[in-house]
Amino acid sequence: MARLGHGLIGSGFMGRSHALAFRSVAGVFDVELTPELELLADVNQSTAEAAAESFGYKRATGDWRALVADPAVDVVSITAPTGLHLEMARAVIEAGKTVYCEKPLASQLGDCEALTREAEAAGVKTLVGFNYLKNPITALARDIIRSGEIGEVVSFRGIHAEDYMVDPEAPYTWRHDPNGGGVTADLGSHIISMARFLIGDIETVNANLRTLYPDRPVAPGSAERRPVIIDDQAEMLVTFAGGATGSLTASWVATGRKMQLACEIAGTKGSLAFNQERLNELRLYKAGQEPGREGFTTVLAGPDHANYAGFCPAPGHQLGFNDMKVIEVKALLEALAADRDPSPGFREATEIQRVVESAYRSSRDRQWVTVGGVTG
Amino acid sequence: MARLGHGLIGSGFMGRSHALAFRSVAGVFDVELTPELELLADVNQSTAEAAAESFGYKRATGDWRALVADPAVDVVSITAPTGLHLEMARAVIEAGKTVYCEKPLASQLGDCEALTREAEAAGVKTLVGFNYLKNPITALARDIIRSGEIGEVVSFRGIHAEDYMVDPEAPYTWRHDPNGGGVTADLGSHIISMARFLIGDIETVNANLRTLYPDRPVAPGSAERRPVIIDDQAEMLVTFAGGATGSLTASWVATGRKMQLACEIAGTKGSLAFNQERLNELRLYKAGQEPGREGFTTVLAGPDHANYAGFCPAPGHQLGFNDMKVIEVKALLEALAADRDPSPGFREATEIQRVVESAYRSSRDRQWVTVGGVTG
Amino acid sequence: MARLGHGLIGSGFMGRSHALAFRSVAGVFDVELTPELELLADVNQSTAEAAAESFGYKRATGDWRALVADPAVDVVSITAPTGLHLEMARAVIEAGKTVYCEKPLASQLGDCEALTREAEAAGVKTLVGFNYLKNPITALARDIIRSGEIGEVVSFRGIHAEDYMVDPEAPYTWRHDPNGGGVTADLGSHIISMARFLIGDIETVNANLRTLYPDRPVAPGSAERRPVIIDDQAEMLVTFAGGATGSLTASWVATGRKMQLACEIAGTKGSLAFNQERLNELRLYKAGQEPGREGFTTVLAGPDHANYAGFCPAPGHQLGFNDMKVIEVKALLEALAADRDPSPGFREATEIQRVVESAYRSSRDRQWVTVGGVTG
Amino acid sequence: MARLGHGLIGSGFMGRSHALAFRSVAGVFDVELTPELELLADVNQSTAEAAAESFGYKRATGDWRALVADPAVDVVSITAPTGLHLEMARAVIEAGKTVYCEKPLASQLGDCEALTREAEAAGVKTLVGFNYLKNPITALARDIIRSGEIGEVVSFRGIHAEDYMVDPEAPYTWRHDPNGGGVTADLGSHIISMARFLIGDIETVNANLRTLYPDRPVAPGSAERRPVIIDDQAEMLVTFAGGATGSLTASWVATGRKMQLACEIAGTKGSLAFNQERLNELRLYKAGQEPGREGFTTVLAGPDHANYAGFCPAPGHQLGFNDMKVIEVKALLEALAADRDPSPGFREATEIQRVVESAYRSSRDRQWVTVGGVTG
Repeated sequence: MARLGHGLIGSGFMGRSHALAFRSVAGVFDVELTPELELLADVNQSTAEAAAESFGYKRATGDWRALVADPAVDVVSITAPTGLHLEMARAVIEAGKTVYCEKPLASQLGDCEALTREAEAAGVKTLVGFNYLKNPITALARDIIRSGEIGEVVSFRGIHAEDYMVDPEAPYTWRHDPNGGGVTADLGSHIISMARFLIGDIETVNANLRTLYPDRPVAPGSAERRPVIIDDQAEMLVTFAGGATGSLTASWVATGRKMQLACEIAGTKGSLAFNQERLNELRLYKAGQEPGREGFTTVLAGPDHANYAGFCPAPGHQLGFNDMKVIEVKALLEALAADRDPSPGFREATEIQRVVESAYRSSRDRQWVTVGGVTG
Repeated sequence: MARLGHGLIGSGFMGRSHALAFRSVAGVFDVELTPELELLADVNQSTAEAAAESFGYKRATGDWRALVADPAVDVVSITAPTGLHLEMARAVIEAGKTVYCEKPLASQLGDCEALTREAEAAGVKTLVGFNYLKNPITALARDIIRSGEIGEVVSFRGIHAEDYMVDPEAPYTWRHDPNGGGVTADLGSHIISMARFLIGDIETVNANLRTLYPDRPVAPGSAERRPVIIDDQAEMLVTFAGGATGSLTASWVATGRKMQLACEIAGTKGSLAFNQERLNELRLYKAGQEPGREGFTTVLAGPDHANYAGFCPAPGHQLGFNDMKVIEVKALLEALAADRDPSPGFREATEIQRVVESAYRSSRDRQWVTVGGVTG
Repeated sequence: MARLGHGLIGSGFMGRSHALAFRSVAGVFDVELTPELELLADVNQSTAEAAAESFGYKRATGDWRALVADPAVDVVSITAPTGLHLEMARAVIEAGKTVYCEKPLASQLGDCEALTREAEAAGVKTLVGFNYLKNPITALARDIIRSGEIGEVVSFRGIHAEDYMVDPEAPYTWRHDPNGGGVTADLGSHIISMARFLIGDIETVNANLRTLYPDRPVAPGSAERRPVIIDDQAEMLVTFAGGATGSLTASWVATGRKMQLACEIAGTKGSLAFNQERLNELRLYKAGQEPGREGFTTVLAGPDHANYAGFCPAPGHQLGFNDMKVIEVKALLEALAADRDPSPGFREATEIQRVVESAYRSSRDRQWVTVGGVTG
Repeated sequence: MARLGHGLIGSGFMGRSHALAFRSVAGVFDVELTPELELLADVNQSTAEAAAESFGYKRATGDWRALVADPAVDVVSITAPTGLHLEMARAVIEAGKTVYCEKPLASQLGDCEALTREAEAAGVKTLVGFNYLKNPITALARDIIRSGEIGEVVSFRGIHAEDYMVDPEAPYTWRHDPNGGGVTADLGSHIISMARFLIGDIETVNANLRTLYPDRPVAPGSAERRPVIIDDQAEMLVTFAGGATGSLTASWVATGRKMQLACEIAGTKGSLAFNQERLNELRLYKAGQEPGREGFTTVLAGPDHANYAGFCPAPGHQLGFNDMKVIEVKALLEALAADRDPSPGFREATEIQRVVESAYRSSRDRQWVTVGGVTG
């Protein structure tokens, strides 16, 4: 079995999630490529060494460029703050290696487009970490839609709401930075990615974005406050190229919501409903059920669904958040082994960002915006 | 105890619901006015007589004008098709009697405004049958919001979706008539009324309305088809005068949905969620719960909530659809006994219709529309 | 249409529920017999008159025997305390009239048996108010079981839990009386009636009954306490004549439970689950669903189910607690019109009481008890 | 950081789950002991080698005794068929190493008792894989009960139901062997372990066990059938030493159920409800909530709960089945580092098996059985 050298940049929450997935994947799935946890980079040598020890990487470095250049590293995971993605991804592309970047790819659409062009020109494989798309239940939803089981899709009603910014005393962070911050980019991109994954291209957007709190403390407990201009709450109307319409909501000020990444899809012959807070369940309605017996069926994830059986041979036993990442890494390994492009790659991440940017533009100009497409 | 003569125009589904409520109300609640089921009018004498016999009315007539003029009739329920509301309501107003009209009051905003002016000028009391607002759980939601228990309202995400028009072979009816038809008027008005009841005035609207099927059979099974131009599916962004924002969806082509009149309300200190398919439940989240014990609480309707105890002294025993109508009639009787205006009256129904009309305008012009207010 | 004179004994909660149902039934259903609310009896003339006025009865009396004897009264509802049922029911039987008694029929099995014999000997029609059996969803569950849709029934797991006695300071009432009191008789009879309705005869019982609080205040706030020996909590194993087995729980000390009358039924080809707190829903699983799409379907009550359409022509609109009583009265009227025995009558109520008594005996003797059958 | 050599016997479903957990644990938690995946044993060398390669073990062997004897192995996981547990566990004890055995420890109570005595005499640490007890939500439930938040526990109503044996053509396996097979041992032990974990010692049992299908094919599709005498369905009444009572159900013929490991716990001041099919949720009711706002609160697992934060810093993001095993291994490592006994060890597993055996005895003798305790 061929080995694949993994280099990890960043050891925060998502860094650990990448590390865990690369560690676990070969135990969960039969993969042709076996990852070796080669090298971990963080802001300095000692931080990197501690993380490497904890996560199981062979070596550590305080210099991410050294990691990119390391001959034992074949795939580079970028889990550093978003503002660094552009520079790092570009370096990996230039090194001709596979780049696996956390979402969002970059905060500016132009940067996403540039990275896409450069990666494609270089023939480098890319993957962006929209891991909720890897849920077997999400794959099931897509299968059901694609196969026509619920007929033609009429509408998509989606939301990603959490409440981690509802406290007005939560301090100003990079998430509040006008350059790329805001809930539409942060959480909105998840429900946009799901809408695209399940339904297809979003053609037009009409958005209403709001800043709930006009300033925040510069640090926890600080009396000094800094103005906030990015969005805390976003509502959008969308139309899809395939003819469906819908609405999307993104909020990080939705008191009580912890992981409400949810959607309802109505088709001419059936409907679906999903909520990430119960990620192992899909509610499915199909027209034509026996009269008096019809209703929404709660399908529990099981080995009949993509990738579930790797974790457990019995249905209903429940996958968790980190398992989605394992499936994402497995998909990456499969694509590399087969010399295919992983998905979603930089091109798809760019399309997602294009919708985000269109929402900002629409809200600013108070009008419908045509999303448009990748410019060559 | 004083008697109140009831006259009922129409004996279809809503007519029966009115009749049942007037029959039951004095057994459920201690009311100062006891309704007498005096007179029932329908399209002809024999239809009216059969219904009067079944519903328990003393007399019947094929002439609704005779009913309006009948000296024993103090309150007139109008449950005839919407197209007749204007003429009938006007006649009741002219007769100086209380008018209790099913929703929508009229299909044209101008007619609603005229009726409101005329009723107010005549000092006549009015009530429009938005009976979902009478649910004790809906009243609880309003109490919670008004009292500030969930802080300042940030967002309202509402929907009313059913599926009774999803079959493209469902024939053309008055609901498809360009003059007043469409799902925004039919179901949208319910979620708009709930949004206004709970949150307050809607200031601006941005709507996207669609016709799913461009024609329908003129009759069941007919090969002849008639063009349809009204809306089957509607999505709207709204802003409230109080500062909240939100989205509203109305659909009668949502396969599998039977009574999804639902909303999620997020405030700065708490949240609510409600679905009419479980009309006895309110999901409530309040900030500041004990760490590790916090979550949404499912409150079951019970005698602590408005009007529940009339039906049952024990909590959790469940009210049904028709019970909402009984509460509506009770509210009417109380208002009359106290010489107060019932609610929602013609003025509020006009405001609801103004939002509906604004949605049509917004969708047609592809832009935000300011709803405006009652013109004196 | 023939008239049927109704006499109501008792005007408490269940009395009002009977009154409401007799008032409403002819408006909800097309019935051949139309009830007239003739006479209401309560403990004295003034109480009876107030209730008659409120409920809409023509006349009132402080003497229930006068009501039984009244020539205008054809059917007598007995909603007085259980201890009076025997004497009252016997009087109605002797008068040759239809007797409609609230549950439990009597607190002693021997009394139930005697009443059954006497009623049958007299050819008098009887009905006992186990109104939860009248839920359209319960009827649906029975249809599904009887038709073999879920195969052979393997197990029944039932519970009726509420919390109205969980406060040790809740005072001693007739419900705590050793002669007939206890949760097994009060709530246990409901889940037993449902088990028999859905599955069939219970053959053997093994019960564990407990008294949680050995004494209670003689009155609210009183320092004087009275010993309690009846059961607050009951668990039972049961076997059914048809071969199924199961467990039943009854509790009135289940903190937080308001109307948990619930059951799960597993068959060789499917399963059902029901909870009265969501009385309009049946969860149904059928073997042989398409792989990857299988699960429990939540069926919402609708016009395809027995008696629903009388209340509402549209599915999912929800029935309530009092609607079950209306269906019960409708079933009574239909039986009388067709000269059939209503169900459940005294014989069935006796069988339910026999299971209750068997549970008491089993718990006392710490052993399995064979329930046995009606002794001629 | 000290290293701990892991030896794994068996590479089936549970073997893989152990391997994954030992691989992942140091990445999830800060542990003082870091596992090394040293040696994997299976039925022969080639099977072992393939599994070792896949799971990441350094070496492989076809001889489990060699694994036990290997000097680099400090902890031995036994995931071989139950019939082999006794011999293997005994060998590990004799080697003075830590033994981590899958449930059930052994099929005969006497064997469990012997192993417990031997392990304790040898001073060897033991752990048995009742991994559902490691769920942060289960730990929360125990904290709530222990702290008195729901008062004194009144009742426990538990079930573990699945449907993997409902097909009468599912072939005879070791699970049907009279020596140790049956659903009470297989699934019943899970709900018994949970009852003991949450409530405490079970004092008496009254059980009804049934064989649904008296024979099964000797192999898939075979016409030859073998008699089955073990139990497919079990219902039990139980009493707890602390005074609570309850009922337990175990079934592997519950059509449609995939992982219904569920319980409802009522206390004098609150209640809990849990279902493993939604393992990240605990439903909690506490007496004394504000009137009109009371109900069951759905608590989502989050970093306030034990061990959750290792997997994810954000609440509501969901743990999965395999994550429970990671927590189990973490608990083992912690105990070893602190020189404490892990839990549940052989002694607790013996107590669980004692309840299982008492159920068998009770059902055979048709009477209540006192469970008794460990004999020194």
